Amino acid sequence: MARALQGIRVIDLSHVLAGPTATMILADLGAEVIHIEPPQGDDAREFGPYAGGVDKNHSAYFVSLNRNKKSMVLNLKHERGKEILRELIKISDVIVENFRPTTMQELGFGWEKIREINPAIIYASISGFGHDAPPEYASRPAYDIVAQAYSGLMSITGPEDGAPCRVGSSVGDIFAGHQAVIGILAALLHRARTGRGQFYDGSMVDGLFSVLENAVVQYTVAHRIPRPLGSAHPSVAPFQSYRTKDGWIVIALGNDRLWARFCSLIGRGDLIKHPRFKTNMLRAKNRKLLTQILESETVKRTTRSWAKMLERESIAYSPINNIKQICADPYIRYRKMLVEVDQPQMGKVKVAGSPLRLSETPGEVYAPAPLLGEHTKQILRDLLKYSDAEIAELAQAGVING
Amino acid sequence: MARALQGIRVIDLSHVLAGPTATMILADLGAEVIHIEPPQGDDAREFGPYAGGVDKNHSAYFVSLNRNKKSMVLNLKHERGKEILRELIKISDVIVENFRPTTMQELGFGWEKIREINPAIIYASISGFGHDAPPEYASRPAYDIVAQAYSGLMSITGPEDGAPCRVGSSVGDIFAGHQAVIGILAALLHRARTGRGQFYDGSMVDGLFSVLENAVVQYTVAHRIPRPLGSAHPSVAPFQSYRTKDGWIVIALGNDRLWARFCSLIGRGDLIKHPRFKTNMLRAKNRKLLTQILESETVKRTTRSWAKMLERESIAYSPINNIKQICADPYIRYRKMLVEVDQPQMGKVKVAGSPLRLSETPGEVYAPAPLLGEHTKQILRDLLKYSDAEIAELAQAGVING
Repeated sequence: MARALQGIRVIDLSHVLAGPTATMILADLGAEVIHIEPPQGDDAREFGPYAGGVDKNHSAYFVSLNRNKKSMVLNLKHERGKEILRELIKISDVIVENFRPTTMQELGFGWEKIREINPAIIYASISGFGHDAPPEYASRPAYDIVAQAYSGLMSITGPEDGAPCRVGSSVGDIFAGHQAVIGILAALLHRARTGRGQFYDGSMVDGLFSVLENAVVQYTVAHRIPRPLGSAHPSVAPFQSYRTKDGWIVIALGNDRLWARFCSLIGRGDLIKHPRFKTNMLRAKNRKLLTQILESETVKRTTRSWAKMLERESIAYSPINNIKQICADPYIRYRKMLVEVDQPQMGKVKVAGSPLRLSETPGEVYAPAPLLGEHTKQILRDLLKYSDAEIAELAQAGVING
Repeated sequence: MARALQGIRVIDLSHVLAGPTATMILADLGAEVIHIEPPQGDDAREFGPYAGGVDKNHSAYFVSLNRNKKSMVLNLKHERGKEILRELIKISDVIVENFRPTTMQELGFGWEKIREINPAIIYASISGFGHDAPPEYASRPAYDIVAQAYSGLMSITGPEDGAPCRVGSSVGDIFAGHQAVIGILAALLHRARTGRGQFYDGSMVDGLFSVLENAVVQYTVAHRIPRPLGSAHPSVAPFQSYRTKDGWIVIALGNDRLWARFCSLIGRGDLIKHPRFKTNMLRAKNRKLLTQILESETVKRTTRSWAKMLERESIAYSPINNIKQICADPYIRYRKMLVEVDQPQMGKVKVAGSPLRLSETPGEVYAPAPLLGEHTKQILRDLLKYSDAEIAELAQAGVING
């Protein structure tokens, strides 16, 4: 199938998660992504789980993020490593990194330098607090959990009266990665018109702050400080998870008509016009009591039994699938969202596929993840026209892998 | 400033959150977004908080999602409403909706029909389970909480031994919105080469399944079913939140060198070489005990006092900011991530800005949200060349607002 980003070359200096998420999406859409790794490899190669051995070429975590990419080992502390990077910048469309903001300057590759080498390139940086930030933030270490905590997202996630919780996946990195892709694609469209590249200054904290949804206006307009609500919705009820005989079920009722239908279904017609529950506003206000009453009913049947009944009534519901259940789910199978990568040295590894279901140019997993330095020589030879003798010399000098 | 999507016209039939998030991002980047609303308005106009009154033109929630857009009221149940939509499809680049998958077909605007009207248009649909899905999913109602529960995300979010929690903002809608933007921009790049439009079939469940990070390979490769861990990390410790005298602080130590530095800092040098804590693997294994010991120290000082000490040691930390704190934060102020919209009938409303910090064409909030139907006549007159008499007649017939 055709690919939307065919012909776009991306230099990927990133590691672990935020940057690699961005370049994974670009690669899934068909960009040629050259993942440049230091001699010891991307840190993500150290993250389990492993398959078929325990070393840098056996991390399933790395495979899940780096399918479809090429790997080139390049020692950027070496002057000749820098020179090769300059040559790559000349012939590429995009460069992505997620170092601390000071690192690229220190390596001699700040934006001013990069645009001098190639004024049409798009340079996307992702960091915890961005490049253009108060000085005390410039070298501040930031992991996903720092962004989740700093941005306010953790303060609204967790049980109603307990400790704040981290979202179970690293959405600080992952949102920042998605936003960087949006910035890069917008910049490619702008470049198509003007011929000019630009700099994208992504921040994980900005990224999460921008997705707090109504929490921001709850504070700035209504002067309420939103708090965690477990699985509940601040202003709609029932709209949360309830215990069943064997687990949990989410039930979401958007209006009074559905409320009446639901009450009849559970044999509690007495609640429909109950003075504390007859309108959504009352139900939201008396949510704790309502939850107690409804759970005394929902625990009587299994999740599957409720699912069938709610399905028939067209009431929005969901089991709370665990990861085993969702990986085996017929919907996910139908959508081909769990894809098998035939990974050299590892065998078949199942990873999440691309959700970018475009009719002509869908995001796809079309190649395995690269072994460390697998494409170094090919890139030097084919793209940069180095001779075999020169390549051997670079390996000898420790600039590339041997 | 120049805008990346200048000249791109988007017909926005969407409502509430997933679709409006996508078109907000497109509008922030400079696309002309025509938000087509039914006579009663986008449902989001009913969501609080309100400012300056309680009606369809006073919802701060609506403002936060629809700044920069135009509003046109169009009754699509009326034949002449459909005709106007056909005319708009002819002259637009993108069409976005987040109805249930059957709705557009029922209105007579399935993809086959839309591409017949304009083969170069990009049609992006976002729904709970997608268009191309097993039949029982096609008309299934899906809210954000359904996607969070179904996808597996809820099963890994929440306290360690408690009930699963919903992420405090509607990330099911918001990720799907971001992914739709990526699909649309990729399709615009493909169209620039080929002249052809395409269909984007976005699913909220696919979207969240694709961002579960290592949870998927933990199951498919290591056969472990990941569970919620509160704020903790499955394989790194300390890497979570700890109680302080007046709240919480997140502390994230990536390696043994930082561990030693941290132990000295808290006056617990005895822990550095402790047989149960001396390596990260041991600390992760004995995390519950470690948390008890460390919290007996962290509760002795305030969050601010810890922040200062950790800052000096270059240890990654963060307060768990609540929404009031992050809205008042100097970093957010410096980055201009909280922006004031001067909203007719409402006054100044502060909303989250765009994280798309491109040097030449940044995402920006440059216009308020539209009043319901504010631009109907302007669009009919200027874009579609209707006469004043025809417009009056359409209003009379209830096709548009009067």
